Amino acid sequence: MYRTHNCGELRISDVGKQVRLSGWVQANRDFGAMTFMDIRDRYGITQIVFSLEEDKQLCESARKLGREFVIMIDGKVRERTNKNLNRDTGEIEIQVNGLQILNSSKVPPFTIEDDTDGGDDIRMKYRYLDLRRSPVQKNILFRSKLSLETRKYLSDLDFAEIETPFLIKSTPEGARDFVVPSRMNAGQFYALPQSPQTFKQILMVAGYDRYFQIVKCFRDEDLRADRQPEFTQIDCEMAFVTQEEVLNTFEGLTRHLFRHTLGLELGDFPRMKYDDAMRLYGSDKPDLRFDMVFVELNEVVKNKGFSIFDEAELIIGIKVPGKADMTRKQIDELTDWVKRPQIGAKGLVSVRYNQDGIKSSVDKFYDQDALQQWVELFGATQGDLMLILSGETDKVRKQLGELRLEMGRRLDLMKKGEFKPLWVLDFPLLEWDDDTQRFYAMHHPFTSPKKEQIEAMASDDREVLKNLRADAYDLVINGVEIGGGSIRIHDRALQAKNFKLLGFTPEEAENQFGFLLGAFEYGAPPHGGIAFGFDRLCAVLNGQNSIRDFIAFPKNNQGRDMMIDAPSEIASAQLDELALKLNIK
Amino acid sequence: MYRTHNCGELRISDVGKQVRLSGWVQANRDFGAMTFMDIRDRYGITQIVFSLEEDKQLCESARKLGREFVIMIDGKVRERTNKNLNRDTGEIEIQVNGLQILNSSKVPPFTIEDDTDGGDDIRMKYRYLDLRRSPVQKNILFRSKLSLETRKYLSDLDFAEIETPFLIKSTPEGARDFVVPSRMNAGQFYALPQSPQTFKQILMVAGYDRYFQIVKCFRDEDLRADRQPEFTQIDCEMAFVTQEEVLNTFEGLTRHLFRHTLGLELGDFPRMKYDDAMRLYGSDKPDLRFDMVFVELNEVVKNKGFSIFDEAELIIGIKVPGKADMTRKQIDELTDWVKRPQIGAKGLVSVRYNQDGIKSSVDKFYDQDALQQWVELFGATQGDLMLILSGETDKVRKQLGELRLEMGRRLDLMKKGEFKPLWVLDFPLLEWDDDTQRFYAMHHPFTSPKKEQIEAMASDDREVLKNLRADAYDLVINGVEIGGGSIRIHDRALQAKNFKLLGFTPEEAENQFGFLLGAFEYGAPPHGGIAFGFDRLCAVLNGQNSIRDFIAFPKNNQGRDMMIDAPSEIASAQLDELALKLNIK
Repeated sequence: MYRTHNCGELRISDVGKQVRLSGWVQANRDFGAMTFMDIRDRYGITQIVFSLEEDKQLCESARKLGREFVIMIDGKVRERTNKNLNRDTGEIEIQVNGLQILNSSKVPPFTIEDDTDGGDDIRMKYRYLDLRRSPVQKNILFRSKLSLETRKYLSDLDFAEIETPFLIKSTPEGARDFVVPSRMNAGQFYALPQSPQTFKQILMVAGYDRYFQIVKCFRDEDLRADRQPEFTQIDCEMAFVTQEEVLNTFEGLTRHLFRHTLGLELGDFPRMKYDDAMRLYGSDKPDLRFDMVFVELNEVVKNKGFSIFDEAELIIGIKVPGKADMTRKQIDELTDWVKRPQIGAKGLVSVRYNQDGIKSSVDKFYDQDALQQWVELFGATQGDLMLILSGETDKVRKQLGELRLEMGRRLDLMKKGEFKPLWVLDFPLLEWDDDTQRFYAMHHPFTSPKKEQIEAMASDDREVLKNLRADAYDLVINGVEIGGGSIRIHDRALQAKNFKLLGFTPEEAENQFGFLLGAFEYGAPPHGGIAFGFDRLCAVLNGQNSIRDFIAFPKNNQGRDMMIDAPSEIASAQLDELALKLNIK
Repeated sequence: MYRTHNCGELRISDVGKQVRLSGWVQANRDFGAMTFMDIRDRYGITQIVFSLEEDKQLCESARKLGREFVIMIDGKVRERTNKNLNRDTGEIEIQVNGLQILNSSKVPPFTIEDDTDGGDDIRMKYRYLDLRRSPVQKNILFRSKLSLETRKYLSDLDFAEIETPFLIKSTPEGARDFVVPSRMNAGQFYALPQSPQTFKQILMVAGYDRYFQIVKCFRDEDLRADRQPEFTQIDCEMAFVTQEEVLNTFEGLTRHLFRHTLGLELGDFPRMKYDDAMRLYGSDKPDLRFDMVFVELNEVVKNKGFSIFDEAELIIGIKVPGKADMTRKQIDELTDWVKRPQIGAKGLVSVRYNQDGIKSSVDKFYDQDALQQWVELFGATQGDLMLILSGETDKVRKQLGELRLEMGRRLDLMKKGEFKPLWVLDFPLLEWDDDTQRFYAMHHPFTSPKKEQIEAMASDDREVLKNLRADAYDLVINGVEIGGGSIRIHDRALQAKNFKLLGFTPEEAENQFGFLLGAFEYGAPPHGGIAFGFDRLCAVLNGQNSIRDFIAFPKNNQGRDMMIDAPSEIASAQLDELALKLNIK
């Protein structure tokens, strides 16, 4: 036996016990007559003591132990004279009377501390050392706890976890698939699933009523900063439900997770229509930790001789409370910020409501009376700053949305530890793409249009089709989309109509999704569901931005696993068996 | 809202309530003045009644409903006159006062009954209908329950569930990998994991102490009757453990699963060395539901003029209690059975201990005194039959093992509902392969040899190496291996030594497993683990042989998913992006 206790569990009540511990040498401090050592495992750190007087040989061997050596010690628990109350085991120490080195360690290439000196690449190559660092370990164990609590909540509600296949069929719709050549079927390929969407719908048709799965999904996309080629979803589906029941069920899940991992009670889950979110926040995932809703100024700013506003489709602004004291220089800097190509605004109009009146950057065109009108629209009071952008509707909303978030950051309004959930509802059914001159599904091709709009799906008018709304919803927390779903189509004819809008020929629809269309002919119940991005959810609950820190073995931006050095070349015999040849240009 | 209750929950105490149910039409019986219908969902079946007198129109619409139509009904719960106590809802029925057809259904291509008339292929193509059948649904929901209970047990013991990657590196050792071409790294491939073995070991090195995962694994093998290209493991690993602790922990898991899914308390988990299992049962996974251990006869049968025994390396037999009354003809049929190529015995010697004495099929060579000696070795009494095979040790053991199982089947000794677990211990470290003239790892290359045998690993003597034993163990229930594991090597030099025995050059070892060898240099703790075949475990607990019935969407023997028709061809643009060309000969 390697231990009677772990390194985190001994307490003052254990004093006097003979114990055995195993762990890693965290620190080794030599004080002449005594050597103090911290030994560490997943559960905590315990101080152990070697006394030169009591056992010279033992103490001398202890002094040779380097950091990260793995040792097993026997000893007696005693009360510490110098207690460390920041540590659960800080009231006791072990007077060692036996030592065995289980394994030695070379000097690690970076320090195993909360703040390490190791860069990204070296930490990924030596991931087994990086994973020892306390913040990383906390993240990985948090993830484990979060998955457990998810399963508890859903199982208690009769959701059955059902595994769907990983070797499925490639479909050109949506993102790019990873494919897997089939040796037994030369020239044919499986695809790895981007989501279990069609399978969970099939399970509803098959009568499983409530399904969930915490499951890996795959997308072969060019990796932006925080994307991974493989990622994890909490994937859920329910039969015989309305949107209202789905929202309530997963509001419940979210509350449960916050309660049982963070000990936090979430407040309201307000609901906002997609159109309102875009109009008021310029985003389909507004961060509600702070206000600054958009104010539309079209009616009061046009026809005063300021051609930029006159020609703009939309003029909108936000009120920044108490920031009327911004200097000219600061405003100029902010103007440069919105003109950066990432934001793309042409300029910024500012209005300061100071003690000595209302001053704007467009005083030439607007007198005090005019500005007074603006101030009223904004509901501004003395001390407030107003920032105004103008241009094409979609663009200017996006730009002002970015500026709003930037002001939130600068004014420190996005408080860590504060969580503001929001349901965004009634997303558009379709999204027009100018490049390919066709509609794409905003959520996915299986999303149900709102009942009252089914008739309008037959229209030829692009604007009518753009305005179709779907029973689709996103759950947003602090400006991050953590989940999204919809009520699905369960009628063959309606599904065929939707495929047609998405540019599928009947043959393409049959070839790719014939099994689902077929299933709809044998008693498909109404159903709907949701999927949460599990990696993202872990990060949001911890107030962090990067999902990579919550994945035990992430890939880098080139899709490489630096530790195992994958992907890699394979033997030509393997290629032959798969009936493939490399074709590198 | 589609329902106030599901189809399995209404009871006599609900009589008088106005309720709404949704479900599938299971049966529709017209009795003139009344129409009785069974509606079904995952939770049960409820009888509903339409009365011609009370609502003619409603009743007439009801009569048109076909099987598998999806309906929503409103009605009043009332007590049945004709109760069905085999059904949880059998004391009540619903007097319908509202009906809505949610979806219609074509006539299914096979009957949705416990015993269906559908063949394998059609059931797989219409898997969404097959999954509606009660025995299949029970299996899939049982699997969900089994995974939940696995997670409960392991989480309570501080095992953390940690996800390991699916896109890893191909290694030529072991079974054939499925590979995934990397678009971002032209000419390079990921592999899908055959198991998370090296990652879980890395997690131990990283200090995670107790890991588990219920995880999909992949093997591109030619599919025998009951293999699947993707299968699920309960994968576990523990640091600072001895074999004894691993065995106890997973004996505990097994007990927990039987208790909480079947309500069964398992008896002892006896332990048997691999060598003994082979010697006594001719198998490394003996079925202990019945006895018939092998009896070795070499000492008493040789040098009596029977050349077949004289020339045999091993003569062994089993005693079949009470079967001395087998006829000559029955024995001849059994002799033919063992001579079939699948078994491959040359012949069968039988001894019957009847009222009128001991009769053998080799009376010519052995007199009563000699046979009396045999009987004593067998511990046989009047009425017993003895069956004896001879030949090369390994072969004859395997043959007699098969005969033993066959006799168990014929005598109905493998009782359904009876479960006999067994730990098989001390497996060989290496397995010699005559074809390739090299050793392979019996478990896997990371398995630790028994401590006292490490020195012998340096031997050049093939026989010495064959006799090396490892800290490797299998959990067997009713003759089926449901789990296997080992204590792992955690020392770089020992791992290198083992790779060498397996024919790796140092370069190959470094190229394939350099990260693990490296990890062993930075304080790797002693560790060990186990993996359970989850599909197999589901089947064994239900006394079934086929794992396919416990997988929602299995593949057929050609590795095809018949429902979605995968694998399939992909677009040439996809191949181009992946820098691949087909090379079909």
